Amino acid sequence: MPDPLSQTFAALADPTRRAILARLALGEANVSELAAPFLDEMSLPAITKHIKVLEKAGLVTKSIDAQYRPCKIKTEALQDVANWMEQYRVFWEESFDRLDEYLKTVSHEKKTKGDKNVRKK
Amino acid sequence: MPDPLSQTFAALADPTRRAILARLALGEANVSELAAPFLDEMSLPAITKHIKVLEKAGLVTKSIDAQYRPCKIKTEALQDVANWMEQYRVFWEESFDRLDEYLKTVSHEKKTKGDKNVRKK
Repeated sequence: MPDPLSQTFAALADPTRRAILARLALGEANVSELAAPFLDEMSLPAITKHIKVLEKAGLVTKSIDAQYRPCKIKTEALQDVANWMEQYRVFWEESFDRLDEYLKTVSHEKKTKGDKNVRKK
Repeated sequence: MPDPLSQTFAALADPTRRAILARLALGEANVSELAAPFLDEMSLPAITKHIKVLEKAGLVTKSIDAQYRPCKIKTEALQDVANWMEQYRVFWEESFDRLDEYLKTVSHEKKTKGDKNVRKK
């Protein structure tokens, strides 16, 4: 039995499961609604299995509404991933910072073009 | 061949590989330095294999220094994970916000205890 964080990462290591999660980020949906976009490529049992992997990983939960049983995103596992990512923020923010610097330069250049009194750095 | 993001998540779905990455977050290290803490539990080839998985997933890179060949963290794959996480920020920030609220309450209570002129909410 893998540890919970390993189980979460393993669940996320599949494009179909990530697409299901992306759909659930927009709101609750039941299994047939979740399956609809994939039925050309795979069977309903295959999709049900993917949903079960997400459930076991604590990323998705089923409501207790007996008739409809919609799935929804469960936050805890995503928070565990976010917490884990925090320790690497210095690494993954590097390029965000570079993008930010670039955007600042661009907006600064726009400004100086529009206003010649502003001294260019 | 899985897509790059799936490969990254799969590489992160192992506590030894995450521990190797955590070590590399502190600075470059060569294979024997990385292996040292694990040699009681597993063989050097097993650890080398873990490092290769991290390399293939774009999380670790080896320097070209032919003598020493230290490994170091590669940022791109971590950034891809961070980008992917962004769309779920509203979910994983929920409890951070609650923690923040709690800490504000605690610090407010501390303040009001220390200063009786401040009206307690």
